[in-house]
Amino acid sequence: MLTLSLIGIGCGDPEQLTRAAITAINAADLVLIPRKGTTKSDLADLRRTICADALTSDRTRIAEFDLPVRDAAEADYRKGVDDWHDAVAAVWSQTIGDHLEGEGKVALLIWGDPSLYDSSLRIARRLDPLPTIEVVPGITSIQTLCAAHAMPLNDIGEPFLITTGRRLRDGGWPAGVDTVVVMLDGGTAFQSLDPAGLHIWWGAYLGMPDQIVMSGALAEIGPRIVAVRQEARERHGWIMDSYILKRRP
Amino acid sequence: MLTLSLIGIGCGDPEQLTRAAITAINAADLVLIPRKGTTKSDLADLRRTICADALTSDRTRIAEFDLPVRDAAEADYRKGVDDWHDAVAAVWSQTIGDHLEGEGKVALLIWGDPSLYDSSLRIARRLDPLPTIEVVPGITSIQTLCAAHAMPLNDIGEPFLITTGRRLRDGGWPAGVDTVVVMLDGGTAFQSLDPAGLHIWWGAYLGMPDQIVMSGALAEIGPRIVAVRQEARERHGWIMDSYILKRRP
Repeated sequence: MLTLSLIGIGCGDPEQLTRAAITAINAADLVLIPRKGTTKSDLADLRRTICADALTSDRTRIAEFDLPVRDAAEADYRKGVDDWHDAVAAVWSQTIGDHLEGEGKVALLIWGDPSLYDSSLRIARRLDPLPTIEVVPGITSIQTLCAAHAMPLNDIGEPFLITTGRRLRDGGWPAGVDTVVVMLDGGTAFQSLDPAGLHIWWGAYLGMPDQIVMSGALAEIGPRIVAVRQEARERHGWIMDSYILKRRP
Repeated sequence: MLTLSLIGIGCGDPEQLTRAAITAINAADLVLIPRKGTTKSDLADLRRTICADALTSDRTRIAEFDLPVRDAAEADYRKGVDDWHDAVAAVWSQTIGDHLEGEGKVALLIWGDPSLYDSSLRIARRLDPLPTIEVVPGITSIQTLCAAHAMPLNDIGEPFLITTGRRLRDGGWPAGVDTVVVMLDGGTAFQSLDPAGLHIWWGAYLGMPDQIVMSGALAEIGPRIVAVRQEARERHGWIMDSYILKRRP
């Protein structure tokens, strides 16, 4: 039997590892580490560091593999994602086959939590033969953002929406909520909103040594976030950020 | 200077503790443990167990206090919550004053994550003098629910709403989303929905030894969840559960 553990490792701070994550890493026969090309190489390095730091078992092998690149030229977004999941599943299968003889425990370290805007669970279901899948939750960037601002996410007894930069840009302020969390924003989708009455709590490189957080009235702080984000992105060569918007009457 | 650390400890499984949580518990001069009356006494016991398990520092003192009860007879829900926060802040202040002379590190262990449907951050802001507030994120019941079902929370690139049982019952299926997470449901608000096309992933006592999870088409599995929930609630004397609903075309 083959078991695949998808292990949430938090946002980059090794202190965010749970006991369960450390146990699961050490229980693995094989840890798969994806290489994502050069631009985000500090992320791959960080994953190697976290893995090395958590590993005390000397029977666990580590296998790196080159992560296929999603075809951004594919006009149909869902088809592009679908094809990419197939390609990644094929590479996982081959790497597992290279190191294990059809049985054992394989681990993948997942940024944040495997259930939140992550493809691994969907890719795992395409493996043939299908392994037993285990999930270990990890601290997400949303939680790290709230902790950095020492803020409650929801208002008392109120709902909130978690959405993407694309959705916010295309659809405007969502119906029925006064709190919106924005993930996967490749740009600064908050600029598409009328800032009147809106407050923002923003963070980049959350949980990492270079963490930046800013907050305030969107009208005032929005343009400063745009400038800080641009500068940081140029300096690092990449950026990952997320933010919370609240509407105040 | 007084520092107050709000430490997310996850859902009851000591394996969900992060390294940062363990470090913060041991850095405290004083850990406050609320007693919530007899009905949820196994929860207070669990908190004591987690605390004892994580503590290796012998200078950390533990102080238990009786948590004030919210006046459920107050017709104005927000005023009831507001008065209750004042009362809890007063008890915190007094308990801290009984043990520390105006400075030191105080820790509170928070179920799940301090940013998600938890009052502690709001209560902490009412303390006089105001302490420096630190937040350590913890694994939430939502993440534990997703992990137990090995399921992705969001659909690819899609938003989702986190709401309460009360909101779902009063407002029906929310606009603009096909995935809804329901927290703080004292009953079974999913029964108020037309189940056609809806799937549910439900869990109770998540992260605890008595964890129960069930999933399926709401029309089919909903009545079974109602029965299982009722039986478990009678057996334990209390229940905490949450669930995810997805609408499939």
